[in-house]
Amino acid sequence: MFVLGIDPGVARCGYCVVEQRGRRTAAHALGVLTTPANTPLPLRLRQLQEDLAGLFDTYRPAVLAVERVLLHVSARTALTVGQASGLALAEAGRRGVEVAEYSPNVVKGAIVGYGSASKAQVHFMVQTILSLAVPPKPADAADAAAIALCHLAHADHRATTVAR
Amino acid sequence: MFVLGIDPGVARCGYCVVEQRGRRTAAHALGVLTTPANTPLPLRLRQLQEDLAGLFDTYRPAVLAVERVLLHVSARTALTVGQASGLALAEAGRRGVEVAEYSPNVVKGAIVGYGSASKAQVHFMVQTILSLAVPPKPADAADAAAIALCHLAHADHRATTVAR
Repeated sequence: MFVLGIDPGVARCGYCVVEQRGRRTAAHALGVLTTPANTPLPLRLRQLQEDLAGLFDTYRPAVLAVERVLLHVSARTALTVGQASGLALAEAGRRGVEVAEYSPNVVKGAIVGYGSASKAQVHFMVQTILSLAVPPKPADAADAAAIALCHLAHADHRATTVAR
Repeated sequence: MFVLGIDPGVARCGYCVVEQRGRRTAAHALGVLTTPANTPLPLRLRQLQEDLAGLFDTYRPAVLAVERVLLHVSARTALTVGQASGLALAEAGRRGVEVAEYSPNVVKGAIVGYGSASKAQVHFMVQTILSLAVPPKPADAADAAAIALCHLAHADHRATTVAR
């Protein structure tokens, strides 16, 4: 089962496709979708929409995992995250792909073990879990990986609970 | 030339299609796209995306006019407006439709004559300009009409300036 994690933004949208096979977890894709700052917003959003559709086409994820937006961010940040996440969620809706949302604290808790972990700790654990030679870069891609891995951890937990 | 004005929201997205022919301004469509509250967000966004595409298909507007989001709104409002407006802007980008953004003060100034006008004054002037028997309802549709009419007023002004 492929899980697509995204860290939504218009200028930079981190993404990571992970899969769990038995005890091994692998990243099949890890990167950032970018749109040029000097281009009108409608064209940037259109490009992001096409690039997101491309990820869905290529990897056919069973789940889209996204971070829940906290409401103490600025309106400017929330607007931009909304524009990018709206495109991703609509694409998932169109394809009947399940969507799972996790708050930042839950992501940190799932990856590091406690909700107040630092970004560096999260990125180090992402590197370890995915058996990468170096920490995943850039940060947006690492954040997207953490969200996708958080979903696998929770899916694992759910499976364990059901099996008991 | 058709102008599509929208007042973006996920639960309710006001829209109005206006056209100016000589001295007469007419509304060809006026209403609200709604999505059911008890439905998962990805499906609501997908439905809104389809309904917006339907408006573009039916009326083939030359311009999409939207209100610029002010940054003193709450993060929750900005997130929702971002999700809805992102879909509309991406659709315009996909079709090569020009997008014009106006701040609320500019819309009020164009419709009523001063930027601090009340909603009721704006809606009354929308009714007058469009020769409607009653004020346009609901409020989201009337707001979308004001944005579309604001664009016509500015387009008029631009044309006049060029002609001089």
